Amino acid sequence: MIVQSVIKELLQKNESKIVLYVMDGLGGLPMRDHASPFDGKTGLEAASTPNLDSLARNSACGLHVPVGPGITPGSGPGHLGLFGYNPLQWEIGRGILEAMGLGLDVKRTDVAIRCNYATVENNVVTDRRAGRPPTEKMRKVTERLQREIPMIDGVQFIFGAGMEHRFAVIMRFPEALAPEAAMINDSDPQAVGLAPLPFIPRHPKAAKVAEAARKFIERAALVLKDDHPQNFVLARGFSTHPRMPSFSEAYGLRALAVASYPMYRGLARLIGMEAPDFSGDINAELEYMKDNWNGYDFFFIHFKKTDSLGEDGDFSGKVGRIEEADGAVPAILSMKPDVLVVTGDHSTPAVMKSHSWHPVPLMIHSPYVFGGLCDGFSERQCVRGELGIIPSVSIMPLALANAGRLKKFGS
Amino acid sequence: MIVQSVIKELLQKNESKIVLYVMDGLGGLPMRDHASPFDGKTGLEAASTPNLDSLARNSACGLHVPVGPGITPGSGPGHLGLFGYNPLQWEIGRGILEAMGLGLDVKRTDVAIRCNYATVENNVVTDRRAGRPPTEKMRKVTERLQREIPMIDGVQFIFGAGMEHRFAVIMRFPEALAPEAAMINDSDPQAVGLAPLPFIPRHPKAAKVAEAARKFIERAALVLKDDHPQNFVLARGFSTHPRMPSFSEAYGLRALAVASYPMYRGLARLIGMEAPDFSGDINAELEYMKDNWNGYDFFFIHFKKTDSLGEDGDFSGKVGRIEEADGAVPAILSMKPDVLVVTGDHSTPAVMKSHSWHPVPLMIHSPYVFGGLCDGFSERQCVRGELGIIPSVSIMPLALANAGRLKKFGS
Repeated sequence: MIVQSVIKELLQKNESKIVLYVMDGLGGLPMRDHASPFDGKTGLEAASTPNLDSLARNSACGLHVPVGPGITPGSGPGHLGLFGYNPLQWEIGRGILEAMGLGLDVKRTDVAIRCNYATVENNVVTDRRAGRPPTEKMRKVTERLQREIPMIDGVQFIFGAGMEHRFAVIMRFPEALAPEAAMINDSDPQAVGLAPLPFIPRHPKAAKVAEAARKFIERAALVLKDDHPQNFVLARGFSTHPRMPSFSEAYGLRALAVASYPMYRGLARLIGMEAPDFSGDINAELEYMKDNWNGYDFFFIHFKKTDSLGEDGDFSGKVGRIEEADGAVPAILSMKPDVLVVTGDHSTPAVMKSHSWHPVPLMIHSPYVFGGLCDGFSERQCVRGELGIIPSVSIMPLALANAGRLKKFGS
Repeated sequence: MIVQSVIKELLQKNESKIVLYVMDGLGGLPMRDHASPFDGKTGLEAASTPNLDSLARNSACGLHVPVGPGITPGSGPGHLGLFGYNPLQWEIGRGILEAMGLGLDVKRTDVAIRCNYATVENNVVTDRRAGRPPTEKMRKVTERLQREIPMIDGVQFIFGAGMEHRFAVIMRFPEALAPEAAMINDSDPQAVGLAPLPFIPRHPKAAKVAEAARKFIERAALVLKDDHPQNFVLARGFSTHPRMPSFSEAYGLRALAVASYPMYRGLARLIGMEAPDFSGDINAELEYMKDNWNGYDFFFIHFKKTDSLGEDGDFSGKVGRIEEADGAVPAILSMKPDVLVVTGDHSTPAVMKSHSWHPVPLMIHSPYVFGGLCDGFSERQCVRGELGIIPSVSIMPLALANAGRLKKFGS
């Protein structure tokens, strides 16, 4: 596996444009239902995808493995791999992912935590989820916490409301934090009938964060004291910015992320991509890409719905979303990118209703490919492709090479 | 990736013979020209290669990746990978490669530098290439330097004349040098109007080399003082022998390199292969191999012209050279090697006029392969082969295994 440091030494600039079109959760498994017209076919095989199929016939095809054989990736590791960051080296903490998913930005001065509203009586947790209160009601409670606790001892608190009892908090310190600053246990005791756990720093550099968290929980309990059942806050997943090199440092590319889901924008921002707030469907994403074509070298276009329908176990629904994603290909090609990469961040077989470990179909379109090895774009067609089955982190070096952005190694 | 230390533990001797037949720059890309009969075909696909095709049908085929995905290798890294040395671990310095290319041997007592004749007036570089003087004239100037500066303070100076203003110098010390001995900056300021840079050792162990280089440049300037425009010498690429284990240490093989280009003999000598001075075409190389068949276990046969024509962008010319290379196969097979490996050191697509990152077609012929998967020998046929797409450094272990030279690992 080639490390980013080698790639960095070989970078050269040019005017090329690279598009990475990610259909989230793209890969799948064959449906097994003799009564279905899709029996024996994967979503990609069942869908009518004339644009992807035509592209596959003239592209370098293969499959990529996000983390490792048999490893089912979360969305964080899946995307990190696509962006060329080894997901085993750069772990994104639970608190960070949660905060990003709720639209919060995470900086190098921050510790992010995932929080639950809970019920505590006589210092004993009686309900870890405060009876799963309604989302809208809790949004207002969270807004109240934000008003009442904007800052403690110079540490800024930024709240993001989630579903039901869930929310996230960013603790923003005045200065950048060491990675060890988040080495703090969860306060959630993971069972009712126990007291919330005190925060114990596991590293000297975590002491001030533990103290700030302690004061935050104390203040929150005061604010919520009459709000039974949601009269307490449990915190877990303390995490700092993973501090990987930025995308522009790593590849010399000015990158634009066009994604309508906050978490993917958050992931993109973590590595310094520009990821403006955006909402809209794939057509709106493509318009946005076109409007910003001249300002960037690299475009990450995220299509979410293939994953969502896979998670729902809705095979036909996923087929429909794949067809919708196929429809976007001509608009991307009309911009004449020098390199177009089409793939997913992981597989989400509808028959499993979850992410899975299966290698993900991949194609790289550029003038410097063989092509002619696949009749269309699917898991089984891609097995025959010229790229073989490669780690996800190989995709970025290949994209850069096809864009003419890598010099020769050695003489 | 299997490291050489593991292989070394498993070595066992036998009487087997292995031939590694390298067509330099073998791999290519499809030509795109509707008017050409070669449209859509790579050089290998366009060429008539009955011998290679027949061999491919009965061999283990695949492709190999010299350095890593997307990385375009120079000739040095390309060959190191074929010989089983990880090119990212063993880097061959610019001075070494240059010296070897000019036919100089490099030992562990040596520092090699790449030099330019330059014009310097009032201690300012006014032409970094001395007006690109004629090669033949400069050959005589270099011979004069060799006569005038055979040795300084016990350090022997060995000169190799190159094209136009280029030459290489070996500084041979009385004792073996540490790798850090070459940590010295270039004196070439890389722009006119600047003074030549003094040599500053970047490590204490480089001090004596920097001092020897300083005296050399001083002496050379004295010798050349009336030779305007070539009245000065600029040096760069200080490098020592990379000190990798020898081929015989690594594999227990007595190896003969038959290569008509000096640089490839130099590479072979770096790892202790015997590589006698030799000139002649592929038929002469094969005769040489036959004449020395009994003295060696391993034969590296180098065919250069496939690369040269690719670099020239001469698609049809490369096709012709591939056909010439194909013609050598029966003579190799007539020697009944136990294992025959046929491949290239990297790809050189004529359509790119340069080396490229594309995986290189590979076949291994021995009694211990499946075969029957490929209809011929080409990039796209090899995608279907039983070897898959593998790192170059996997080839030597596979060759040794097929030759019966590796014991079982564990019980």
